[in-house]
Amino acid sequence: MNVTTPVEKRDFKEKSDFKIVGKSVKREDVVEKVTGEAEYTGDVKLPGMLHGKIKRAAIAHARIKSIDVSKALAYPGVKAVLTHENVPRVLHYGSPHPRSASCTKDQYILDNKVRFWGEGVAAVAAISEEIADEALDLIEVEYEALPAVFEPEDAALPGAPLIHDVGPGGNLVLDPVRVNRGDVEAGFAEADFILEGTFSGGRPHPAYMEPNVCIADWDGTNKLTFWTSTQTAFMVRGILAEVLGLPLTKVRVLVDHMGGGFGAKQDCFQHEFLCALLAKETRRPVKMEFTRHETFVAGRARHPCRIWLKQGFKNDGTLVARDMKLVYDSGAYGSHGPGVTIVGTNAATSLYRCENVRLEGRCLYTNTPINGAFRGYGVVQSYYALDIQMDEAAERLGMDPAELKLKNVVREGDIAPSGHPILGHGLEICLQHGLDVVDWKKLRGRDRTPDSKRPHIRKGWGIGCEMHGSSAYPGIKEQGNATVKVNEDGTVTLLTGAAGLGTGAHTALAQIVAEELGVRFEDVGTIHGDTDVVPWDIGAFASHTTYLVGTAAKMAATKVRAEVLDRAAMKLQVKAEELDLSEGKVFVSAEPGRFMTVAEAMGPSRGIPAANIVANGTYEPTKSYSFAVHFTEVDVDTETGIVEVKRVVPVHDIGKVIHPIAAQGQIEGGIQQGIGHTLTEDYVIDKKTGRSLNAGLVDYKMPLSMDMPDIETIILEAAPDPGGPWGAKGVGEDPIIAIGPSISNAIYDAIGVRFHHYPITPEDVLKALREKGQ
Amino acid sequence: MNVTTPVEKRDFKEKSDFKIVGKSVKREDVVEKVTGEAEYTGDVKLPGMLHGKIKRAAIAHARIKSIDVSKALAYPGVKAVLTHENVPRVLHYGSPHPRSASCTKDQYILDNKVRFWGEGVAAVAAISEEIADEALDLIEVEYEALPAVFEPEDAALPGAPLIHDVGPGGNLVLDPVRVNRGDVEAGFAEADFILEGTFSGGRPHPAYMEPNVCIADWDGTNKLTFWTSTQTAFMVRGILAEVLGLPLTKVRVLVDHMGGGFGAKQDCFQHEFLCALLAKETRRPVKMEFTRHETFVAGRARHPCRIWLKQGFKNDGTLVARDMKLVYDSGAYGSHGPGVTIVGTNAATSLYRCENVRLEGRCLYTNTPINGAFRGYGVVQSYYALDIQMDEAAERLGMDPAELKLKNVVREGDIAPSGHPILGHGLEICLQHGLDVVDWKKLRGRDRTPDSKRPHIRKGWGIGCEMHGSSAYPGIKEQGNATVKVNEDGTVTLLTGAAGLGTGAHTALAQIVAEELGVRFEDVGTIHGDTDVVPWDIGAFASHTTYLVGTAAKMAATKVRAEVLDRAAMKLQVKAEELDLSEGKVFVSAEPGRFMTVAEAMGPSRGIPAANIVANGTYEPTKSYSFAVHFTEVDVDTETGIVEVKRVVPVHDIGKVIHPIAAQGQIEGGIQQGIGHTLTEDYVIDKKTGRSLNAGLVDYKMPLSMDMPDIETIILEAAPDPGGPWGAKGVGEDPIIAIGPSISNAIYDAIGVRFHHYPITPEDVLKALREKGQ
Repeated sequence: MNVTTPVEKRDFKEKSDFKIVGKSVKREDVVEKVTGEAEYTGDVKLPGMLHGKIKRAAIAHARIKSIDVSKALAYPGVKAVLTHENVPRVLHYGSPHPRSASCTKDQYILDNKVRFWGEGVAAVAAISEEIADEALDLIEVEYEALPAVFEPEDAALPGAPLIHDVGPGGNLVLDPVRVNRGDVEAGFAEADFILEGTFSGGRPHPAYMEPNVCIADWDGTNKLTFWTSTQTAFMVRGILAEVLGLPLTKVRVLVDHMGGGFGAKQDCFQHEFLCALLAKETRRPVKMEFTRHETFVAGRARHPCRIWLKQGFKNDGTLVARDMKLVYDSGAYGSHGPGVTIVGTNAATSLYRCENVRLEGRCLYTNTPINGAFRGYGVVQSYYALDIQMDEAAERLGMDPAELKLKNVVREGDIAPSGHPILGHGLEICLQHGLDVVDWKKLRGRDRTPDSKRPHIRKGWGIGCEMHGSSAYPGIKEQGNATVKVNEDGTVTLLTGAAGLGTGAHTALAQIVAEELGVRFEDVGTIHGDTDVVPWDIGAFASHTTYLVGTAAKMAATKVRAEVLDRAAMKLQVKAEELDLSEGKVFVSAEPGRFMTVAEAMGPSRGIPAANIVANGTYEPTKSYSFAVHFTEVDVDTETGIVEVKRVVPVHDIGKVIHPIAAQGQIEGGIQQGIGHTLTEDYVIDKKTGRSLNAGLVDYKMPLSMDMPDIETIILEAAPDPGGPWGAKGVGEDPIIAIGPSISNAIYDAIGVRFHHYPITPEDVLKALREKGQ
Repeated sequence: MNVTTPVEKRDFKEKSDFKIVGKSVKREDVVEKVTGEAEYTGDVKLPGMLHGKIKRAAIAHARIKSIDVSKALAYPGVKAVLTHENVPRVLHYGSPHPRSASCTKDQYILDNKVRFWGEGVAAVAAISEEIADEALDLIEVEYEALPAVFEPEDAALPGAPLIHDVGPGGNLVLDPVRVNRGDVEAGFAEADFILEGTFSGGRPHPAYMEPNVCIADWDGTNKLTFWTSTQTAFMVRGILAEVLGLPLTKVRVLVDHMGGGFGAKQDCFQHEFLCALLAKETRRPVKMEFTRHETFVAGRARHPCRIWLKQGFKNDGTLVARDMKLVYDSGAYGSHGPGVTIVGTNAATSLYRCENVRLEGRCLYTNTPINGAFRGYGVVQSYYALDIQMDEAAERLGMDPAELKLKNVVREGDIAPSGHPILGHGLEICLQHGLDVVDWKKLRGRDRTPDSKRPHIRKGWGIGCEMHGSSAYPGIKEQGNATVKVNEDGTVTLLTGAAGLGTGAHTALAQIVAEELGVRFEDVGTIHGDTDVVPWDIGAFASHTTYLVGTAAKMAATKVRAEVLDRAAMKLQVKAEELDLSEGKVFVSAEPGRFMTVAEAMGPSRGIPAANIVANGTYEPTKSYSFAVHFTEVDVDTETGIVEVKRVVPVHDIGKVIHPIAAQGQIEGGIQQGIGHTLTEDYVIDKKTGRSLNAGLVDYKMPLSMDMPDIETIILEAAPDPGGPWGAKGVGEDPIIAIGPSISNAIYDAIGVRFHHYPITPEDVLKALREKGQ
């Protein structure tokens, strides 16, 4: 890994002598994680705890005629059974985000209708998981089957079965998202040539290692304590409170460590409401933990998409018109469909400059499992199309695709998808830097004769460009909060609502506080994951934790530092401006031998009472964009069709790097996940019945560590953003967006076959080679 | 009960239209407490939890020659055994308070010496309580007996066995506390007569219903989470951190509900260190719960005392000199001995006015169980002597004791024991008001002929006066803190470090926040009992929670209110001064129909982003005094010697009353406890061996509900203190101080026998009557 300091300075003061930020300090949670001592939600055991299980429909679309739970209720060890007949009937969003978007509440806790194969129709609490499971079989459900629809195109047809009776009409999840800029028709008229293509994306699943799990416990004051593996604890609190009819003071959501989420753990899930209600009914704690099968069926996958893209080019490579229609498949409920459609559609205004743009994004219900938020949130799909078509245009122009991309990538001042001007030339710098590092010109001109020992192997290189916003979501309350307090011994406690997905966010936040305040990293303790006590937080998603909460934490630390200096000044009888704070010591700048510890500054002395130093930071962010270009080498085996990614040189601009190894880990992890999505992963739903065909890690193929290519991560602090702490920006989502098109472009480079879809399976490769006559 | 509004107005703005404060709102914890759902420390169960037990010495003073734990360690189910040989050897205070007083660290976790019968010498962790108990018997300890001393007078003799080799010398716990005011010799010279007497107090035990209990759990980051039944969670955190060598960020102390403490749960106890160390050793959670026997032997009782009191009076009733020597028995360790000696000695400067005062308080180690903080903290003892001698003086003068007391009670501007001027004529008003209510003159002049049906019953009335300070402890960091935040739905969360002893403190604090902020009482949720997250707190003791933390909570609520009004003003497009806030609605004062809810004011609208409203209040208090006079009627059975308290009219001045029923509960509970201490309760130590003779509720006689007299509580808001919220002062300790002398004085009124000690047992009464020749 290589971190390069800023090539461009922005108009904010850059600190020159970082002590903690920019260093890969030891993450506090590593030891407990490798020893297995870290407590995840699934590790929580409460006295008298029951286990809940959900009965899932084996039909994709149906009306429930009757449910007979008498046998299940009579089964020894069963404590409660819930059906649509005895749970509150409250329409809700399921997902916290689309509230301010044009979307509709479309979920019930349990409905008298089934909208996808695997949807929960009843829930049981029993003294063991086994008994609960056995009781599910004793519940008798009589269905009236309804015609079902499994593809968004079919769902959009007139006369298609209606999945919901709420919403904007037909099977639309939200009104089509339309973006118009410039004059597209005039642009096409100007074009020297036009490219038109359709693209499609499968249904990759985040397949986080920790299954969804929650525990509900009501106390004697009717307050619900709710442990759950969620990225958005405050949002879950809000939805639970609303649906269960409780004030927010009566719902406490707890989450400590998480075994991944990747965006998908942002919903308030059906099992979470049911768990809370089973606990209420039985007056005992109830735990519900998904099987791996359920994480697929009842979790959230990426929205499958169909994209039609038409662009006009001049012969000098200028893009003059872009016309794009995106169709996202929401599955049976809205969830993040609105957000994904808005973000994914708007993203297509950018990346490659074009003045005349017309976009239409639509999102449709189908009778398939629910799709939701997932790393890359709509943008993976649209940039896959944009970037591949850019390669095609280069070929048509007889240009090096690198050259065409370099000419067209967005630059400082261009309007970003968020509507804000872009800061810096991050994308251009990443592209140029990577071209130099991989010696692209030489690669392009290399001898392409196959190795005589492995003549069936073809090698290719591809470039994928992307940009992605931190805090760039439309219409939601973007606010970072942090509280910093000083303890009597001079140690510091940071209270943050930011969730610990596993990314090391809390380490980064503690680094920021230690750096700004002037104490040692190990003197900062971080408290998180308890909605009762930490400041409100929007949740960990959108690549924004370091950017958004980091700035709030820095603001709080700035205030605390000033208070500490004021107190020390009073005690040392100097002016606060004459003091400095470093490694937990306040010293007179001119006489470093004259100092006191933070603890001494805090404490009482000479009639000055002990201090209570605590400060809050609240930050309403601007929008910020990170950039990445991936240079990827593949081997395509023309005999088996297997594509092997051999080497990736990811070049990222993420502003100031807080923790280099954590940032590198995000990039490597994103590449691994992106390789899977591009080549092997697809959660397949049978198009006749709606049944899941590979809901498990045996049949759903994720790349393992041994499938990983060489990755030479390069992080450029190219375009720091003044909105982030010392210019830091997000990094979580970028790598998964750039890797896909780079692979597809590399495959073309290797075998001359252009794929417009993912995953590109060996069967696809072999079929395409056959069709090409090879 | 009768609450009377202020008879005196002080120089602060009094609110006239209270909506929540002053009302007996329903305490949030009542339902869970009566249903048994409230979670106390003893209810906490953790997976894999071990149980710890302590081996206690059956000798009062000895050196440990050897300990053999091999059999215990080999016993199946035993996981760890600790002795002085394998625990850190760090001297500590045990009690958090005396740090700034003239006292000495005198405790080890485990020492190679035993200083009282029952002291812990080893600890075992095992998979069940039974196995741990059995293993204790397998530990073989060889002692070298040392000469022991059981009375403070003996401990003070030259050549007495030395219990500690630290401290100011001899068996003194701290240097004698000396107070001199005026010229005592001159005063005595002026006196028309002098009274001299010795007084003594037994060893009453708080006997809280919830035994001491704690659970220790270390996580994978070596952070200690520690549930314990304590009044002073932050102090326990500090001592544990110091003794175990941890930063404060690595110790989290949790306490939810408590089943009483009455002051005695302010120490950091031997079992608490041992529990933490057993958990560290075994890497499993460990619980330690006292038996009832252990709450006596290893808990904390009130300091037994010997008081010599000599006072000079003029014939008009003027007090001209007071000479007093107090000796407190600390037991084997210092604990709160220094604080009790300082507070109890200084208290004797006041109550009844006297210009010439000479006091000497001493506190001595003895080889008996440790005495500590207990409701009334040293003052119970000194005012028992002062008030009884006042009755004696009245008799000598041929005056009504009420008249003499009324003449001499402290008044506005007199110097309080804290050194601050007293605010208001609270004590005088209480006394006068009570005299009127009970029709004292008529009582005094009544026919005293015994009832012919019960000729062995003699009736008597007595008066006891007292005053007691909130936040009046010497030399410790008195600071109240509170955080108030507003949730998205307009409900409010109060974070406070104040412990919930069972007094209803959290209800009172929530009332204060609701009243000040302008929301409904039920909209305020209170978070407490977690040192990681709530603001620093000194602990719940010294009758100061409502006064100290209440003011901090009010300060925080004031800030939050202003922020809410500012936001509403922006949205309603009026000035904040034109708005009012009531029941969670902000309305234009002049047009009450024009309003928005707090939630609406908080939320985003018209380009104004959502707010994060949170504020902290920190309060460094002044000193405040509450006052009480108890009027008590007793029946003395001259055949059995049994004294029955028939009726008590307690008249208290506690400033503004926040929750009348809770205040009344405190008063009634204090009277019950005080009756026990005065008549039946005494924890008896054998003076030959140091063994406890009645360490259990069968032999230690507390009054039951059926023993309770009629109590007609009168609360006067006579002298509100501007330092408390709307003038509120403390009430927790006052009742237990006033009841004792009122009973003793009433017994004298009934049978003409003057008792100078407590408890006054039936045997004492019969013996005294025999001696008197009746």
